[in-house]
Amino acid sequence: MAVYTEVSGEELEDFVTQYDIGTAMSFKGIAEGVENSNYLLQTDRASYILTLYERRVARQDLPFFLALMDHLAAQGLACPTPIHGRDGNALRELCGRPAAIVSFLQGVCPRRISIPHCAELGRAMATMHLAGRTFRGSRPNDLSVAGWRRLFEATRDRADEIELGLGAEIARELDTIAAAWPSRLETGVIHADLFPDNVFFLGERLSGIIDFYFACNDFFAYDLAICLNAWCFEPDASFNATKARQMLATYRAVRPVSKEELAALPVLARGAAMRFLLTRLYDWLNHPEGALVRRKDPKEYLARLRFHRAATGPGAYGLE
Amino acid sequence: MAVYTEVSGEELEDFVTQYDIGTAMSFKGIAEGVENSNYLLQTDRASYILTLYERRVARQDLPFFLALMDHLAAQGLACPTPIHGRDGNALRELCGRPAAIVSFLQGVCPRRISIPHCAELGRAMATMHLAGRTFRGSRPNDLSVAGWRRLFEATRDRADEIELGLGAEIARELDTIAAAWPSRLETGVIHADLFPDNVFFLGERLSGIIDFYFACNDFFAYDLAICLNAWCFEPDASFNATKARQMLATYRAVRPVSKEELAALPVLARGAAMRFLLTRLYDWLNHPEGALVRRKDPKEYLARLRFHRAATGPGAYGLE
Repeated sequence: MAVYTEVSGEELEDFVTQYDIGTAMSFKGIAEGVENSNYLLQTDRASYILTLYERRVARQDLPFFLALMDHLAAQGLACPTPIHGRDGNALRELCGRPAAIVSFLQGVCPRRISIPHCAELGRAMATMHLAGRTFRGSRPNDLSVAGWRRLFEATRDRADEIELGLGAEIARELDTIAAAWPSRLETGVIHADLFPDNVFFLGERLSGIIDFYFACNDFFAYDLAICLNAWCFEPDASFNATKARQMLATYRAVRPVSKEELAALPVLARGAAMRFLLTRLYDWLNHPEGALVRRKDPKEYLARLRFHRAATGPGAYGLE
Repeated sequence: MAVYTEVSGEELEDFVTQYDIGTAMSFKGIAEGVENSNYLLQTDRASYILTLYERRVARQDLPFFLALMDHLAAQGLACPTPIHGRDGNALRELCGRPAAIVSFLQGVCPRRISIPHCAELGRAMATMHLAGRTFRGSRPNDLSVAGWRRLFEATRDRADEIELGLGAEIARELDTIAAAWPSRLETGVIHADLFPDNVFFLGERLSGIIDFYFACNDFFAYDLAICLNAWCFEPDASFNATKARQMLATYRAVRPVSKEELAALPVLARGAAMRFLLTRLYDWLNHPEGALVRRKDPKEYLARLRFHRAATGPGAYGLE
């Protein structure tokens, strides 16, 4: 949560004239999105989000992300729609950074995850997966097995600062996960960061999915595995099988899940826990002094990783 | 700019039921206000700002600030209006902190200050001063001469880290300013922090004044002196007398400025520069590691202080 780049009222007004969206009436930096600077812009016509892309998002990936949001929104998914300027471009520059305006979505992020939230999530995720099948762009998942090894190399010397023996444990896990990683599951465009902060609800109705800046082509079931991690553990670290079952049931009602996908869930969930453990570990160890971002505890995902390690099949999640 | 306290969607929904303002449709932490946590709350009826008051605002002062905003808004000033709950209270508690909801004001803060901005500011400041005359509450200015001494005691040992000799220079200045400080000018409720970040414009029309959390009873002319500092210096540190003249002209058209007030402007402006030099110096030296607040450079106000020291009368500002 941060605003890294400050945009003045005048810079904003100049920028807004490049679009047909009315006159700026209000403009607030918002504490949303760890990676970029986000502003809520209200014009005399509607509300929008203005995003300035900071270093961590690769500039060459931005056309993929924006085209994907265009595509998904056109398919009826409740996601931010890039606003194209008078010149037809959605991606332009502001304050020396790539910048885009997208439509504003109503809703609030849940913190106490309920069963109905998980039911809504499963349905929306499957709908998103189907809607992405006709999307022509593609982007490899640079935070899959090979990416984890790079992150581990950058953190292994100091991993034991978090917990004694953590470096050795991650090394063993990486080998095991890589050896067991599936290769033949159905792939498509996945969100790859479908955490509760990226899903809006109005009451218990899902009203939108945001933050497609990790979206990539990978196994559909890997998105499910990320959500098992992100939505189905309780604050006391226990696993809530009812939430997992609900999520899978509504997902399946939209997109069937194969036996192979189901069988792969334990290793996919283990990999997903590894991915978030490693990025959090990296961020924890490389937290710049005075940074505007709050660090997330890597140990939360270490505990999940150990849970998945003990899972012998989908039954461990209450799934079948 | 920060959100120090994170409020979940559920906590918000519970909180909102205590008011008659409709149902929450969106809720964003905003990067506004250095001292508190602020959220932009949109309901199905209107937009609001929810503020959680963090440590730096004294809890016992909150009723004064909220009652003042109530009073000024009732007098027609474009300022946030506290929303009273179903029980009649504007001040309540959320996440263990005092909290209040106020009306949302449209507009954006200027960065490149124009002459028309200063003209609008002068008129609005005078209107606010007049509107405050019928307000019954009062609060001493704890950031006037005595408060500066306390701040200086807390920073003098390390002042020379900013510039060699700064400690001695501030000590001399404090004595000089205290000796010359006026005592018989007209007093009333002043804003005391009327910086461009706290004033909204739509185009060149002033649309609102916010952040009354330094408001207090002091010389009206001290507010003018703060604005000479905050609005009339150019980014290259030069003083723009045209801006000062415009601001004073529109101010005077609403509230006459006495000869004594005019004559006191140099010392008041010197005191105002001292006040911001000292709070910035304190914050610079006591910046907590990993804090979410960006430090402001104290030297900017040191330069202004020196400018005012050389002023022998209002003519130095182009004023008469």
